[in-house]
Amino acid sequence: MTLFTERLNAAAIRNRSLVCIGLDPWGPSMPIDDIAVFTRAIIEATADLVCAYKPNYAFYEAEGLPGLHALKATIDAIPDGVPVILDAKRGDIGSTATAYAKAAFEAWNADAVTLSPYMGGDSIEPFLEYEDRGILILTRTSNPGGRDFQELPIASGEGSARAHGGTPRPLYEHVVERAVEWNTRSNIGLVVGATAPEEIQRIRGLAPTMPILIPGVGTQGGDLEAAVRYGVDADGLGAIINSSRGIIFAGNGPDFADAARAAAQALRDQINAERDKLGLRWPS
Amino acid sequence: MTLFTERLNAAAIRNRSLVCIGLDPWGPSMPIDDIAVFTRAIIEATADLVCAYKPNYAFYEAEGLPGLHALKATIDAIPDGVPVILDAKRGDIGSTATAYAKAAFEAWNADAVTLSPYMGGDSIEPFLEYEDRGILILTRTSNPGGRDFQELPIASGEGSARAHGGTPRPLYEHVVERAVEWNTRSNIGLVVGATAPEEIQRIRGLAPTMPILIPGVGTQGGDLEAAVRYGVDADGLGAIINSSRGIIFAGNGPDFADAARAAAQALRDQINAERDKLGLRWPS
Repeated sequence: MTLFTERLNAAAIRNRSLVCIGLDPWGPSMPIDDIAVFTRAIIEATADLVCAYKPNYAFYEAEGLPGLHALKATIDAIPDGVPVILDAKRGDIGSTATAYAKAAFEAWNADAVTLSPYMGGDSIEPFLEYEDRGILILTRTSNPGGRDFQELPIASGEGSARAHGGTPRPLYEHVVERAVEWNTRSNIGLVVGATAPEEIQRIRGLAPTMPILIPGVGTQGGDLEAAVRYGVDADGLGAIINSSRGIIFAGNGPDFADAARAAAQALRDQINAERDKLGLRWPS
Repeated sequence: MTLFTERLNAAAIRNRSLVCIGLDPWGPSMPIDDIAVFTRAIIEATADLVCAYKPNYAFYEAEGLPGLHALKATIDAIPDGVPVILDAKRGDIGSTATAYAKAAFEAWNADAVTLSPYMGGDSIEPFLEYEDRGILILTRTSNPGGRDFQELPIASGEGSARAHGGTPRPLYEHVVERAVEWNTRSNIGLVVGATAPEEIQRIRGLAPTMPILIPGVGTQGGDLEAAVRYGVDADGLGAIINSSRGIIFAGNGPDFADAARAAAQALRDQINAERDKLGLRWPS
């Protein structure tokens, strides 16, 4: 058995890349009509440049059953050795979470899945039983509404605040600390938006060895330098830096796959330049 | 245009019922193999006894693409006039939420969908633009892990705590208060577990007119009396009391549909006995 993190790091090292491409085929932005043909072309053009792919469930489900068939075809088109992160943000009570885990890891055969923490421990546990798969838990997200609840300060005397001298700490830090507690099988990672750089730093401090999926560096305008500097672990790995629209919709003509390759390469190079500045080397 | 609440109340009044049946076809518990045949039989046997049906996405997705085809067939089998609540607990950044809203309301044609609040306002907003559909936001859920984050006290001086003299209040109350603010189109409702009766009372007090979906009365052991007493609005409507396994798996032989009908009727009668005790009358 290999852990998700091991497969992720192997792909990152082989391709010298922390880039994850978000395969989010939103109809109005598509250069061609057929989702599966589109995603397959993107995958073929970029598979040697990434550490993972991240199809977001929403964009397939929006097209109904044909869209979901295209999701299957998309996942099937991703070559062995490049992990698939199914971005589905699931979260339900224990018995239902068992069904969602079966969906993510058996029906879709994803290597990892994103989960929302709102419903607590038993909504996560059934996923953890798939020891060779990864679970990426939302903490501080990259959208404007990420502030609405995730940053609310938890009153002193409760949970982590007690351990930190009674200072109120934001909800997302409580989520990180519970995730660290739940990580007895080493298969949990976190999602932290690139638009919240100081939060990436704090979260990396609380969870030094977990993989961190960092969306929001492309169209959403996140801070790439902070994503690299604070996102990587002690080995300079473990940051999964995602760009979706900035890569897959880089071109809208017949050369869209070439344009996506160029955009992926540019992002990989930018990230690697930041790694160089930090003195990080790729293991050989 | 009719609002979701209007269609819900019309079905409740016509069928004299606050019962919602959760259509959750979990393989190991199924009396027959074919999901769509199973759910259609349940629907035909119970459509005059309910105010809504609630298929939970997980149990269909767990069976892969055939399961999702069965979800479509299940929704198609629900007669006009009985609202369909798609229990999917979605939640993602704004642009992705637009795709999820299209999925729920156009691809699946649900009357309402459940959403997780963790990602905040812009993860909800695209759903609200479908004015004739309902959005049911998780607040205090019925599972053990519901406690992990939803009950954490928010420090004084923040959000609702400020308005309440600085007393820390649990996260789920902040969620309810934001939901009330967001409800400018009268299409938001809430999800509150029946296993948390005093919370139902507090939440009904904060949101006097919203529909409240109350799962957890069957197998999960929730408090039916509290669900009725505190769940209904001033007209004795607006509580959507869900039972899934307790009804659909009431029998496991060839008479499973009759057994489901008997269980649905028993739950309806119990709820109506509670309504009678409260002096509530059905409008004619």
